Amino acid sequence: MRRVLVINGPNLNMLGTRQPEIYGSETLSDIETACREKATALDLEIDFFQSNHEGEIVSAIQQARGKFDAIIINPAAYSHTSVAILDALLACDIKVVEVHLSNIHRREEFRRFSYVSKAADGVICGFGKQGYLLALEAAASFFK
Amino acid sequence: MRRVLVINGPNLNMLGTRQPEIYGSETLSDIETACREKATALDLEIDFFQSNHEGEIVSAIQQARGKFDAIIINPAAYSHTSVAILDALLACDIKVVEVHLSNIHRREEFRRFSYVSKAADGVICGFGKQGYLLALEAAASFFK
Amino acid sequence: MRRVLVINGPNLNMLGTRQPEIYGSETLSDIETACREKATALDLEIDFFQSNHEGEIVSAIQQARGKFDAIIINPAAYSHTSVAILDALLACDIKVVEVHLSNIHRREEFRRFSYVSKAADGVICGFGKQGYLLALEAAASFFK
Amino acid sequence: MRRVLVINGPNLNMLGTRQPEIYGSETLSDIETACREKATALDLEIDFFQSNHEGEIVSAIQQARGKFDAIIINPAAYSHTSVAILDALLACDIKVVEVHLSNIHRREEFRRFSYVSKAADGVICGFGKQGYLLALEAAASFFK
Amino acid sequence: MRRVLVINGPNLNMLGTRQPEIYGSETLSDIETACREKATALDLEIDFFQSNHEGEIVSAIQQARGKFDAIIINPAAYSHTSVAILDALLACDIKVVEVHLSNIHRREEFRRFSYVSKAADGVICGFGKQGYLLALEAAASFFK
Amino acid sequence: MRRVLVINGPNLNMLGTRQPEIYGSETLSDIETACREKATALDLEIDFFQSNHEGEIVSAIQQARGKFDAIIINPAAYSHTSVAILDALLACDIKVVEVHLSNIHRREEFRRFSYVSKAADGVICGFGKQGYLLALEAAASFFK
Amino acid sequence: MRRVLVINGPNLNMLGTRQPEIYGSETLSDIETACREKATALDLEIDFFQSNHEGEIVSAIQQARGKFDAIIINPAAYSHTSVAILDALLACDIKVVEVHLSNIHRREEFRRFSYVSKAADGVICGFGKQGYLLALEAAASFFK
Amino acid sequence: MRRVLVINGPNLNMLGTRQPEIYGSETLSDIETACREKATALDLEIDFFQSNHEGEIVSAIQQARGKFDAIIINPAAYSHTSVAILDALLACDIKVVEVHLSNIHRREEFRRFSYVSKAADGVICGFGKQGYLLALEAAASFFK
Amino acid sequence: MRRVLVINGPNLNMLGTRQPEIYGSETLSDIETACREKATALDLEIDFFQSNHEGEIVSAIQQARGKFDAIIINPAAYSHTSVAILDALLACDIKVVEVHLSNIHRREEFRRFSYVSKAADGVICGFGKQGYLLALEAAASFFK
Amino acid sequence: MRRVLVINGPNLNMLGTRQPEIYGSETLSDIETACREKATALDLEIDFFQSNHEGEIVSAIQQARGKFDAIIINPAAYSHTSVAILDALLACDIKVVEVHLSNIHRREEFRRFSYVSKAADGVICGFGKQGYLLALEAAASFFK
Amino acid sequence: MRRVLVINGPNLNMLGTRQPEIYGSETLSDIETACREKATALDLEIDFFQSNHEGEIVSAIQQARGKFDAIIINPAAYSHTSVAILDALLACDIKVVEVHLSNIHRREEFRRFSYVSKAADGVICGFGKQGYLLALEAAASFFK
Amino acid sequence: MRRVLVINGPNLNMLGTRQPEIYGSETLSDIETACREKATALDLEIDFFQSNHEGEIVSAIQQARGKFDAIIINPAAYSHTSVAILDALLACDIKVVEVHLSNIHRREEFRRFSYVSKAADGVICGFGKQGYLLALEAAASFFK
Repeated sequence: MRRVLVINGPNLNMLGTRQPEIYGSETLSDIETACREKATALDLEIDFFQSNHEGEIVSAIQQARGKFDAIIINPAAYSHTSVAILDALLACDIKVVEVHLSNIHRREEFRRFSYVSKAADGVICGFGKQGYLLALEAAASFFK
Repeated sequence: MRRVLVINGPNLNMLGTRQPEIYGSETLSDIETACREKATALDLEIDFFQSNHEGEIVSAIQQARGKFDAIIINPAAYSHTSVAILDALLACDIKVVEVHLSNIHRREEFRRFSYVSKAADGVICGFGKQGYLLALEAAASFFK
Repeated sequence: MRRVLVINGPNLNMLGTRQPEIYGSETLSDIETACREKATALDLEIDFFQSNHEGEIVSAIQQARGKFDAIIINPAAYSHTSVAILDALLACDIKVVEVHLSNIHRREEFRRFSYVSKAADGVICGFGKQGYLLALEAAASFFK
Repeated sequence: MRRVLVINGPNLNMLGTRQPEIYGSETLSDIETACREKATALDLEIDFFQSNHEGEIVSAIQQARGKFDAIIINPAAYSHTSVAILDALLACDIKVVEVHLSNIHRREEFRRFSYVSKAADGVICGFGKQGYLLALEAAASFFK
Repeated sequence: MRRVLVINGPNLNMLGTRQPEIYGSETLSDIETACREKATALDLEIDFFQSNHEGEIVSAIQQARGKFDAIIINPAAYSHTSVAILDALLACDIKVVEVHLSNIHRREEFRRFSYVSKAADGVICGFGKQGYLLALEAAASFFK
Repeated sequence: MRRVLVINGPNLNMLGTRQPEIYGSETLSDIETACREKATALDLEIDFFQSNHEGEIVSAIQQARGKFDAIIINPAAYSHTSVAILDALLACDIKVVEVHLSNIHRREEFRRFSYVSKAADGVICGFGKQGYLLALEAAASFFK
Repeated sequence: MRRVLVINGPNLNMLGTRQPEIYGSETLSDIETACREKATALDLEIDFFQSNHEGEIVSAIQQARGKFDAIIINPAAYSHTSVAILDALLACDIKVVEVHLSNIHRREEFRRFSYVSKAADGVICGFGKQGYLLALEAAASFFK
Repeated sequence: MRRVLVINGPNLNMLGTRQPEIYGSETLSDIETACREKATALDLEIDFFQSNHEGEIVSAIQQARGKFDAIIINPAAYSHTSVAILDALLACDIKVVEVHLSNIHRREEFRRFSYVSKAADGVICGFGKQGYLLALEAAASFFK
Repeated sequence: MRRVLVINGPNLNMLGTRQPEIYGSETLSDIETACREKATALDLEIDFFQSNHEGEIVSAIQQARGKFDAIIINPAAYSHTSVAILDALLACDIKVVEVHLSNIHRREEFRRFSYVSKAADGVICGFGKQGYLLALEAAASFFK
Repeated sequence: MRRVLVINGPNLNMLGTRQPEIYGSETLSDIETACREKATALDLEIDFFQSNHEGEIVSAIQQARGKFDAIIINPAAYSHTSVAILDALLACDIKVVEVHLSNIHRREEFRRFSYVSKAADGVICGFGKQGYLLALEAAASFFK
Repeated sequence: MRRVLVINGPNLNMLGTRQPEIYGSETLSDIETACREKATALDLEIDFFQSNHEGEIVSAIQQARGKFDAIIINPAAYSHTSVAILDALLACDIKVVEVHLSNIHRREEFRRFSYVSKAADGVICGFGKQGYLLALEAAASFFK
Repeated sequence: MRRVLVINGPNLNMLGTRQPEIYGSETLSDIETACREKATALDLEIDFFQSNHEGEIVSAIQQARGKFDAIIINPAAYSHTSVAILDALLACDIKVVEVHLSNIHRREEFRRFSYVSKAADGVICGFGKQGYLLALEAAASFFK
């Protein structure tokens, strides 16, 4: 059974209350529940991790090496500013899917660039919670 | 039953022979077959369209108004240069999913910007043929 | 009697339904009717042409050489991206008036630049349908 | 009867002698005469104002509030440098038509940008004296 | 016997009348005649194609695959704006020589960049009709 | 008793009617009244000056030299365009506090840069009328 | 009684010894003491927090939601680089005052831009310790 | 006898007290005296004019037409921001010498560009008061 | 005996496995061993510290003040994004040597700029492990 | 008989050993031999010159005036940096053909711009040794 | 008696024949003669030097140290590209006057920037031969 | 015994007298002496070369091929402007260490970029004379 680590960046623990007109009204816990269901359906084992700390996300990625087969990451604000997370992903030898809740290309200029995209196999944005489920499908398709 | 129009831009008719190290070895016909199977599974009706002409893509989008519930579009080269396609999508009142076979954010600078993203609800890139199937799932999820 | 060719670019055939908050609720047919009335009043003969194809607009401009005394052109999306239309106008030895329905200088950055302006004698923007009638007056004034 | 204020910026009092290859050989007085005739024909009342002082133009715009129904402004050099005139127009609740004698888009880079365009309903450039008459027609059309 | 396809982009059908101070007074037909003579001398078989349509040029390039040994292309205005033509050339496995009648590096900024150069083996510009003949020699030299 | 000159730039005489959604509904006279009360409380003597003319503001600053101990200035539109006001402040040997009613960093790009900030000891923006009172406190604190 | 959270970013714990020619000779503890006195005078309750960790500042802002009525933040170095702190402030529904000890607009280019300003109601910079007291007054004025 | 108008821009009336480390300790009156002496020696008649108002400088230039044979102008801060002064000089048919007290190319970025230079025959900067005397010599040499 | 603190930034704990084609096959532990040997030879006392957390590196630098005579820092990814580390170094009154394993000037654009270089006495890059030993020599030479 | 000077810039004396994957394995001597043969066939007299010194190339161009009818120049590295060579060519009244061995438009950004192109009648790049022979043909065609 | 070294950069030996519409019809020898006369009148001793070689100009400047009291330099093309000449001037402890025959600010973009200006006390441009004489006067005035 | 060529660029022959606050008070001869001592200690044979001429440095590098095992180069001003030196180093198949006396990253913008770095194995800057000794150690370490 393949293992997938789902990493969520800063402020995603605020989903549901955080600017719902952009990020929707579902909580991170709702997303986790939906992901776990989808994972079961896809025969994947998943871990779910959130942190506001760039350094903790770097460490989590490092520790995924050898333990997970793929990382799904929504780097949130760190997408646009973190070379450290990019480097951690490059240092890690597994598949990477980047997810964003909103379509970042329709937002402010500084949100349209993501360092993480340079290390991702694929990117999915703009589909809200559904984006995580698509990412799981994408991950599952890597192993077929 | 919901209807989805799948539009493919210039040179996608060359898939299979066109730079396979970037675009893979499957043909557009393989992608169409996979999409039709997936559509059936998702209870969607689909039309499949390819053109090398910007103007024909503009017209196809215009004619989709009222006939389709969503457009999945891989604008290929026109992603980066066509305001006309952007305007056609903005003029049309249906859901839009943008797809790219490769992860455009890891390629040349001029391929990282897409006018079409400004009209898309969501964007999926880097998953090859699988990206179209994810786009169909995303489209199906709009109607739930 | 002087002859004027009125050229309309991509998506202008969608007027009336296309983003009416920007482009107004009148159709291209309404504009044509108003133009024909104005032309009669100004003692001008007009032809009216619309295309979504850059190449067809290039050809229409080429064929205007020797047959028309002025071109009124609303290049729409191609204003911002078409060197080919600019070159066709430069290759043609007649007067050119550029028209835009909206005031492009108050819109997105990429809509503020027009290649076509480099070949136009004058530019009129922001007056909706009325802009075409002003353009006809401007054209008529060239021949006095 | 509707009232229109026609404002002319710096150096327009030099028309006729000023670089006639760009600005033509007619004087500002010729333009005023033509405008007054056109206004009568259109059943408009007009005032005509010229100043070399940015501050005086700002004040003239402020005083137009409540007294005029539209402003026609050729900001000349201040188009490219004056946020103060832009702000005065934004502070004023009437229609604004911007006019330029020459087609500024075919001139030096710094003449292609106009702060005033951000407050204008429409812009007319490149038609010389005729541009003012078109602007009056445009203004008249606002009130129909 | 090697086969070479000579492709001419938009407005090149206007040569002779089009801005002769830049493009010279010879027609495209004159160029074709000279090319055919040169080709015979070089023992090459050539086809000669012109279109104002980006999409038609894309299709012509695609169809050259397997039928021609080299493409000589003067993309004209599309040099500066067409990623689609670039992609068609990249998708095609044959030699490419880019030609421009004028020296584009001495012209407006936007004419100095060519997407097509990224797919060309070599570029020749500034020699007018003679440039096509040099391109044929260059093509012939590829096969020695 | 310390003396403070409060300078207001162009269009601030329009406060109350000018875009109240940005600048609030209080008039410049309301601000002056509040400033005079605050000044009395802080044991400062103040002069209050407004002009739409860049040159008059320059002259007012020059004349403040030796007569005032501090300048509080809301340069309004001239913040973004006036090197002359910057130079007048640099030529003058007294304390400078810059005030803006709105938070200019959340507005259009061209409003985010202020030449005047290069000569100011401190800057206060976004607090409406209250900003002037804070500026008076800041000025008073310089003399403690 | 209203509650205000005062957040201090990285290296502000070094005040007093850190580049005193820029930041002055008072310590963060001196600033805290002055703030507490001022808060008492203004009838505000305050908490005082400093961290060198971006993630801890993000978490502190998140936890302020519902517990505080305003945040006063001196983001120090993170002003210029942290989208995560910007997003935390946007996710939080309370008033925000940004403070800088020095006038950042007179320093290096990279210190003149602050992401945090996009979420702040107002900004105060250049007044050293006094800036915090002005910020408290500004905060108090929000609740009147 | 040839006539020369010497124009001084904003803040030059502050010379002597204004940042003497940059502009020297001589007053504008000292410069005027030296200029008048030099003019006598060169058999030139001069007028000397200073204003803080852009509009007044524009008007002074306009009025010089036909009355003076050359203008020597130190536009000070308006060098960098005034298209209106540039246009007044272009509209005027006489020789123009631009002078700056300091070497503007060694100062802040925004002081290195001068609109006025586009209308000047020659430019002299960095020689303090001596620069005016060199400018008079340059002017005299035009008439030999 | 002089004391030197050697700080290593994010992902350097992954050396040996992390992209060995760029960073070599030696581990951070190998580097530490070599440094300790070299330090002994140079009669220096060293501490060795690695963290993935920007905030922890800031704190480590702050605590070095007064305890160490020099810092050798390989800021890794934080070189390019951390103003906080720059400020910590500026706040600290000791010698700083910056080290990079790879020659960052031959890599991606964003890796060529280092905020830390603005606080470093010297920079050494491109020599792999050997770079640390050179840095120790450089540090030792400061104390001669 | 027409005379042509062939100038080769810095490092071209290293051809054959210098990065043969870019510049090919033929030496400059091979190119000279081929040029001399071609020149004989074209009834041209040629001189062949190489220098690593910008100043020597400038002088060689100056001395060509009146002695040669055309210059063929491969400026190599000086293409991108030498205004002096550009000026020498502009100062010289003969035909200029610029040649590059590689297609510079497919290489690093700084190699895509050539000052020399601003003085060249035509440019040929990407054809290796053959490019020189084409340049000779182009030169010969100037004299027909 | 003060000594002045007059340095002329590349292509100035071509004056008279070189683009006389820009640089005038006088030769460098004419300029030298005029300079020698002027020097005698000003009681200065001068040396006159021209080179097409950047390195020779660098060496000439180095050797001026201690032997000359001022350098007058027309760096011609090297103005825009030579940091080496800038550094030589900075390394040399004497007065520097930069001269250009044409007004470089009215020419191509790349001619408007001069590295040499960063080391010059003053700059004179646009006065042709007369500029050298003004420079001598300026130099003489340094020693009064 | 390995051989190392030490190359010094323009103005380095002026060390000791040249801006000692930046470059220190030691002469190039002092540096050479120290290098020779260090080389002996490291069992290296060295040659020491300085030139103000770009072309001579290019030639020296070319001649090093096959004769030396490594080049240590301080390109001084040519770092920032010479593609020719970059190309010479790329054409040469030996190890390259780049040295700068000062930390170029803390100086003017144009000094922060070095073409030479693109050809260097490693770069050392900011350590004055000591930097050359470190470079020798680095070179020696290549051969172990």
